[in-house]
Amino acid sequence: MTARQRLAALLDRPVTRNAITAVILFNAVILGLETSDAVMAAAGPLIVTLDWLCLAVFVLEIVAKIVARGPAFFRSGWNVFDFAVVAVALVPDVHGLSVLRALRILRLLRLISVAPTLRRVVEGLIAALPGMASVFLLMALIFYIASVMATTLFGESFPEWFGSIAVSAYSLFQIMTLESWSMGIVRPVMEVYPFAWLFFVPFILVTTFAVVNLVVGLIVNSMQEAHSEESEAATTDYRDEVLRRLEAIERRLPERD
Amino acid sequence: MTARQRLAALLDRPVTRNAITAVILFNAVILGLETSDAVMAAAGPLIVTLDWLCLAVFVLEIVAKIVARGPAFFRSGWNVFDFAVVAVALVPDVHGLSVLRALRILRLLRLISVAPTLRRVVEGLIAALPGMASVFLLMALIFYIASVMATTLFGESFPEWFGSIAVSAYSLFQIMTLESWSMGIVRPVMEVYPFAWLFFVPFILVTTFAVVNLVVGLIVNSMQEAHSEESEAATTDYRDEVLRRLEAIERRLPERD
Amino acid sequence: MTARQRLAALLDRPVTRNAITAVILFNAVILGLETSDAVMAAAGPLIVTLDWLCLAVFVLEIVAKIVARGPAFFRSGWNVFDFAVVAVALVPDVHGLSVLRALRILRLLRLISVAPTLRRVVEGLIAALPGMASVFLLMALIFYIASVMATTLFGESFPEWFGSIAVSAYSLFQIMTLESWSMGIVRPVMEVYPFAWLFFVPFILVTTFAVVNLVVGLIVNSMQEAHSEESEAATTDYRDEVLRRLEAIERRLPERD
Amino acid sequence: MTARQRLAALLDRPVTRNAITAVILFNAVILGLETSDAVMAAAGPLIVTLDWLCLAVFVLEIVAKIVARGPAFFRSGWNVFDFAVVAVALVPDVHGLSVLRALRILRLLRLISVAPTLRRVVEGLIAALPGMASVFLLMALIFYIASVMATTLFGESFPEWFGSIAVSAYSLFQIMTLESWSMGIVRPVMEVYPFAWLFFVPFILVTTFAVVNLVVGLIVNSMQEAHSEESEAATTDYRDEVLRRLEAIERRLPERD
Repeated sequence: MTARQRLAALLDRPVTRNAITAVILFNAVILGLETSDAVMAAAGPLIVTLDWLCLAVFVLEIVAKIVARGPAFFRSGWNVFDFAVVAVALVPDVHGLSVLRALRILRLLRLISVAPTLRRVVEGLIAALPGMASVFLLMALIFYIASVMATTLFGESFPEWFGSIAVSAYSLFQIMTLESWSMGIVRPVMEVYPFAWLFFVPFILVTTFAVVNLVVGLIVNSMQEAHSEESEAATTDYRDEVLRRLEAIERRLPERD
Repeated sequence: MTARQRLAALLDRPVTRNAITAVILFNAVILGLETSDAVMAAAGPLIVTLDWLCLAVFVLEIVAKIVARGPAFFRSGWNVFDFAVVAVALVPDVHGLSVLRALRILRLLRLISVAPTLRRVVEGLIAALPGMASVFLLMALIFYIASVMATTLFGESFPEWFGSIAVSAYSLFQIMTLESWSMGIVRPVMEVYPFAWLFFVPFILVTTFAVVNLVVGLIVNSMQEAHSEESEAATTDYRDEVLRRLEAIERRLPERD
Repeated sequence: MTARQRLAALLDRPVTRNAITAVILFNAVILGLETSDAVMAAAGPLIVTLDWLCLAVFVLEIVAKIVARGPAFFRSGWNVFDFAVVAVALVPDVHGLSVLRALRILRLLRLISVAPTLRRVVEGLIAALPGMASVFLLMALIFYIASVMATTLFGESFPEWFGSIAVSAYSLFQIMTLESWSMGIVRPVMEVYPFAWLFFVPFILVTTFAVVNLVVGLIVNSMQEAHSEESEAATTDYRDEVLRRLEAIERRLPERD
Repeated sequence: MTARQRLAALLDRPVTRNAITAVILFNAVILGLETSDAVMAAAGPLIVTLDWLCLAVFVLEIVAKIVARGPAFFRSGWNVFDFAVVAVALVPDVHGLSVLRALRILRLLRLISVAPTLRRVVEGLIAALPGMASVFLLMALIFYIASVMATTLFGESFPEWFGSIAVSAYSLFQIMTLESWSMGIVRPVMEVYPFAWLFFVPFILVTTFAVVNLVVGLIVNSMQEAHSEESEAATTDYRDEVLRRLEAIERRLPERD
């Protein structure tokens, strides 16, 4: 057994996995405490040190995994995910950007790759995406067309909501979620353009109908998957068995005529 | 092979289809750029020229298709759709109406008729409509009755929301989507008519229930379609086979009694 | 054939049904026009006369039906519905109540009892109700308990929203529909009672979960109904046939041993 | 028959159950009347006395049940539920806390444990929870991460909405329910941080998608349960029968070859 194989075996042991999970949960508490000004004033240096220790553990683990598995490490999507999520924390925070500091919390997402139950849920969600691709494409097309139309029609009078394609797309997303669509947006627009509802009401109906069909598709898909595997196999086995026996009986019967 | 047949063959080649898709996507970018005042100030004439070139390609393609297929062209719904969507851009913009300018973006909908995946999604959505016709009819009846009632009851005190049947119908659509129904509309109305909730709460319950049943119907329908075809056929084949063999065995058995 | 039988036959003829449908649709237009002040100023007496004529037709039809069928008329729910909906229009409008005038529009609901498609949809919706009865009962209990709690806890400081059980129930219904629940109600309440979210967030989770389960139950029910009848019958028939034949074969086989 | 057995028999009689149900319903009315200042001013002492009488009946019933069943009483979840709900009312109201007074209304929840239909609905809802555990865990993780990020990013400028992790979690729950998410929160935030939508729009998409998948899972689960039991059993019985008979026929056929 080479050193690399021994390292790989060590990383696969449940003890290691549980230790990493514990470090993630501990780090979650630490990162939570960092948001509190009172706690940082009282024990700032301690908190920051503990955070760096947690990060060190993650870096060590990933380096060990890369050493143990070599380039094969990057073939698993979950490994790439772990790598990216830890790497974010190592980007130097030159400009004091709070965004980079905020992204460090994404480290907790490692809980998903470590816990098999969560992993399965996320894999299920991702597996549902390709079946929804064409509806998403259609939605993107509808949004682009509606954004250009809204910008052309209402952009001049309502630059805050429909000033450019991007701004219109955001406003239309809000309208699709039905948030303040009428009192907040369409009624004010209708005071200037009385026929604006001819644009917005069909937009709501079409996008809602598309979303409903997306959900219906999801339900039908998961249903068929849940249904088929075991019971289909049992049915096929049984049918083959019956036909085989009937043939055997026919072969053993005396010829008549 | 006549000239018309050669033209039809040319139009059906994948190269032509891909070229048209590319022109649509290019036109999408152009039409998007037209909404930006900065871009139009810098390169307005170029953008407009490119837009006219794209339109020229579409017109040429449709004319070619009509020549190649003759009156049969208009028998396909998708062809009529393409024709209408391109024709809109040719309507002369006499009064400088921004509405006509905005409708030109509908040209991008041609992407649906060109891309088979999108086409199938839209055909699926349209196929679901007839099954929903009677629930839609019922909803229309409920909306008409509720609009007349709301106009009679609250029209005088709240002309902005319930001044006429059309205005009431819009407000009731807003209430059905649950947008600001209570804080925005029903609470102010209840300050004048304390029993207004006797009208609005049942309206919400009835329309929501009808919408839920529409969705349930959609799910059950897609489910049955997804379920039946293949597996039903396999079952029927198997059953016929078993019965045929049993009959054969019986025929070959010696008579007793 | 007695006069009553001839009357019943006349009422059942498609021509009569179509005529009644036409009168209902005509009456819908008339009742719609009555909401317009401009139309009433121009042709008020004509509109009112036409409305009375329509009502006269409905009264005549119902009287004819009662005469033709006798007390059996009231045994059908749809007949009672027609009777009630027409009777409302005959209640004398002593106090000039706009409510009674508004209820006359309910006459158009007769369209449902006349059109078989609409009738089937409504019968389907009503058939779904008993299966939802126990969840409704549970919701009523939750609403009563939550209303009493909200009145006790927040009634003194927010009489407008939680002043009495009825007022609280309305506010909680608004919160259940998620309309302005946070910005409009819970955030202001939390400024006085910081722990108010401990009441409202669980209330939202519980009621939403109950509603979701109601919908899930509806879907599963319609699915099973749609699934079972035909295909179950075919399966049972096939199985009986196979077992019958196998028995016949066994009976005709020579005894061995 | 010992005294304890006779007591247990008495408690199980339908008469006792109906009497308890009647007392619960009567208590519901009493507790409702207690919220009305007018009623309490007119007949306060009577109402309070009747409330105490109802409570006395509940205490007596539970004491009787504990005596009759002994420690086994606490083995049923519903008994523990009844005990807790009645015990709340006996906590002395030292500080005049309206919270404790409000909790007394929870006593009405006993209606659930007494009425078998309601009991079954609640048991169904609870049975659905374990299947949703992993999605809930994922949601909790997403909420914790998003709350820490929102506090880090927007906490300084918007302390009212994102001042601490708890406050952020409440605001994100509001945003997940889509209540005033854009007009109320994200648009004001975007005036300070123009790229805030890069955080909020993905948050809405991810949580909504997770919730939709939760509901889809619920539907598929209830479907399979509804489907399987009876019909699966019938299928298995039939298949065993067919195979058994085919074997018998084969055994009785003359050997050939």
